[in-house]
Amino acid sequence: SSSSNLIRATLFPGDGIGPEIAESVKQIFTAAEVPIEWEEHFVGTEVDPRTQSFVTWESLESVRRNKVGLKGPMATPIGKGHRSLNLTLRKELNLYANVRPCYSLPGYKTRYDDVNLVTIRENTEGEYSGLEHQVVRGVVESLKIITRQASLRVAEYAFYYAKTHGRERVSAVHKANIMQKTDGLFLKCCREVAEKYPEIKYEEVVIDNCCMMLVKNPTLFDVLVMPNLYGDIISDLCAGLIGGLGLTPSLNIGEGGIALAEAVHGSAPDIAGKNLANPTALLLSAVSMLHHLDLNEKADKIQDAVLKTIAEGKYRTGDLGGTSTTTEFTKAIIDHL
Amino acid sequence: SSSSNLIRATLFPGDGIGPEIAESVKQIFTAAEVPIEWEEHFVGTEVDPRTQSFVTWESLESVRRNKVGLKGPMATPIGKGHRSLNLTLRKELNLYANVRPCYSLPGYKTRYDDVNLVTIRENTEGEYSGLEHQVVRGVVESLKIITRQASLRVAEYAFYYAKTHGRERVSAVHKANIMQKTDGLFLKCCREVAEKYPEIKYEEVVIDNCCMMLVKNPTLFDVLVMPNLYGDIISDLCAGLIGGLGLTPSLNIGEGGIALAEAVHGSAPDIAGKNLANPTALLLSAVSMLHHLDLNEKADKIQDAVLKTIAEGKYRTGDLGGTSTTTEFTKAIIDHL
Ligand SMILES: CC(C)[C@H](C(=O)O)[C@@H](O)C(=O)O
Ligand SMILES: CC(C)[C@H](C(=O)O)[C@@H](O)C(=O)O
Repeated sequence: SSSSNLIRATLFPGDGIGPEIAESVKQIFTAAEVPIEWEEHFVGTEVDPRTQSFVTWESLESVRRNKVGLKGPMATPIGKGHRSLNLTLRKELNLYANVRPCYSLPGYKTRYDDVNLVTIRENTEGEYSGLEHQVVRGVVESLKIITRQASLRVAEYAFYYAKTHGRERVSAVHKANIMQKTDGLFLKCCREVAEKYPEIKYEEVVIDNCCMMLVKNPTLFDVLVMPNLYGDIISDLCAGLIGGLGLTPSLNIGEGGIALAEAVHGSAPDIAGKNLANPTALLLSAVSMLHHLDLNEKADKIQDAVLKTIAEGKYRTGDLGGTSTTTEFTKAIIDHL
Repeated sequence: SSSSNLIRATLFPGDGIGPEIAESVKQIFTAAEVPIEWEEHFVGTEVDPRTQSFVTWESLESVRRNKVGLKGPMATPIGKGHRSLNLTLRKELNLYANVRPCYSLPGYKTRYDDVNLVTIRENTEGEYSGLEHQVVRGVVESLKIITRQASLRVAEYAFYYAKTHGRERVSAVHKANIMQKTDGLFLKCCREVAEKYPEIKYEEVVIDNCCMMLVKNPTLFDVLVMPNLYGDIISDLCAGLIGGLGLTPSLNIGEGGIALAEAVHGSAPDIAGKNLANPTALLLSAVSMLHHLDLNEKADKIQDAVLKTIAEGKYRTGDLGGTSTTTEFTKAIIDHL
């Protein structure tokens, strides 16, 4: 195939184990003949004044131009005067919805064997406003901001997602019994959107009760939509049910049709460069990206190969109780394609 | 025993199933010869202007006088112009720490069989400030307030609790990577207190990661201390691990040595008055109250009888998969005393 038929996608290998797991994705994409051409960007070594962070302006421009990207873990360098890398990407690219499908992996045993849900997190406001100050000595406050615009936008996406993915139910997670104005507005927006989707069931669940129900019986839920902090908490809780962040894909949806897939686990500096990292979360995120591009056949093919390799259990990385290297695990997946 | 040797305690039977489970506690306390005399108070039928809620001023005075109380579930009547019953009690009595021991009940199977931790929740501020407003149309904000005073107070209690209950470790749960000022102040206070308890290990864990770890392996934790909303979420999550709010005790610690034990589950109006309710959470809360009063022998005796009854499995209420009535379950416990 000539390079003119290729879709250009930005790739941020990231730090720590990032380059190794990105290499795994690249090899598997090549083997599966995915029509994607990567445009690699690295985290800068100095703060870029245009982004106030180590994320370079060029790399943001790359995602804006390509409209699609894949991102490995990025550790925010310690020090003052710059913004977190992840938050910079969310803010600058207006990544308003974070979508995390979470399902039990066949053959990989945890306490739960029937998880199949999707968390959709508002990704730009709420407790992440960055607005905090000291009122008087010993008294500080943080502002949680909820807007109609951002709430409608993520609610729209959640219902659209449910409809286009054969999901039956959307549950809005909130604490409106305490935060009547902020979470109340979020719910109001969800209700408005729900009316436009009569074929999708809509319900509301208080966050504390939601967490209790999730650990007792996660099959009670289908699609969950929620403000930023609740999404942060619940998506990690759900990842825990099926084995952890090393196994769960994540896709960020931005304004203007941008989609940035990312592995949300850490950069694991302790095992970096040792060929021990598990590329599953980045691979399944890349699969989400392919679905977003409507390359569904390629997406399914790769996902099947990843899941089969894990299910067989012959080649598993250390975090899954195996002894395989990243390279061996990658090769096993390629053999299953 | 003459009534002059009795300790007076306030009892709020509460709504719905409240009176039935309170009756169970009273019978078991009588059978166990617990030297307590109950002073019963009921939720008012009108808003008391002195409390701005259905909680009467007299009942608050009763707790202030007795310094100890037990509370069943209270459903806040719907309507405007009054405060939630639970929040009124917390605010008026300055119940600054909510303590919930959470342990697997022998013989009652859930997905987890080795849970043994305690959550200690700051109970007066944070996201529960009640300060919210609309900035402009479609933009609302809630204030999260963290103070040095309340943070030190709950941290002090957590370390004191750990030390006096043979616990080894206190973990402070936070999101200071995002809320650097508010959660940062909370952590600073925890660190200050930790220095005074060199024999207790101290660690900090980000809330999202904490939830993931809890569902993967709850034995990683011992005592958890945290701001209000995280405590609300995590205590319910932990209850879910061992079977739900029907099984977990809760004790609120207030200024001036006040302790108010409470069942934190709902009032279950659907089964109210049908002799079907499970009194376990209220009973184990009453046991916490006895420990607080240093009536440890009575406390242990009752707790053993409750746990044995559940473990044997012959008499269990419907929520635990049995067919016993509240009366039968209560009698079985009395037989085990
Ligand atoms: C690293 C941190 C700032 C981030 C967040 O809180 O959103 C992470 O937990 C996530 O979920 O992507
Ligand atoms: C009923 C509600 C206001 C309350 C809270 O949020 O604190 C409850 O969830 C609790 O944990 O006691």
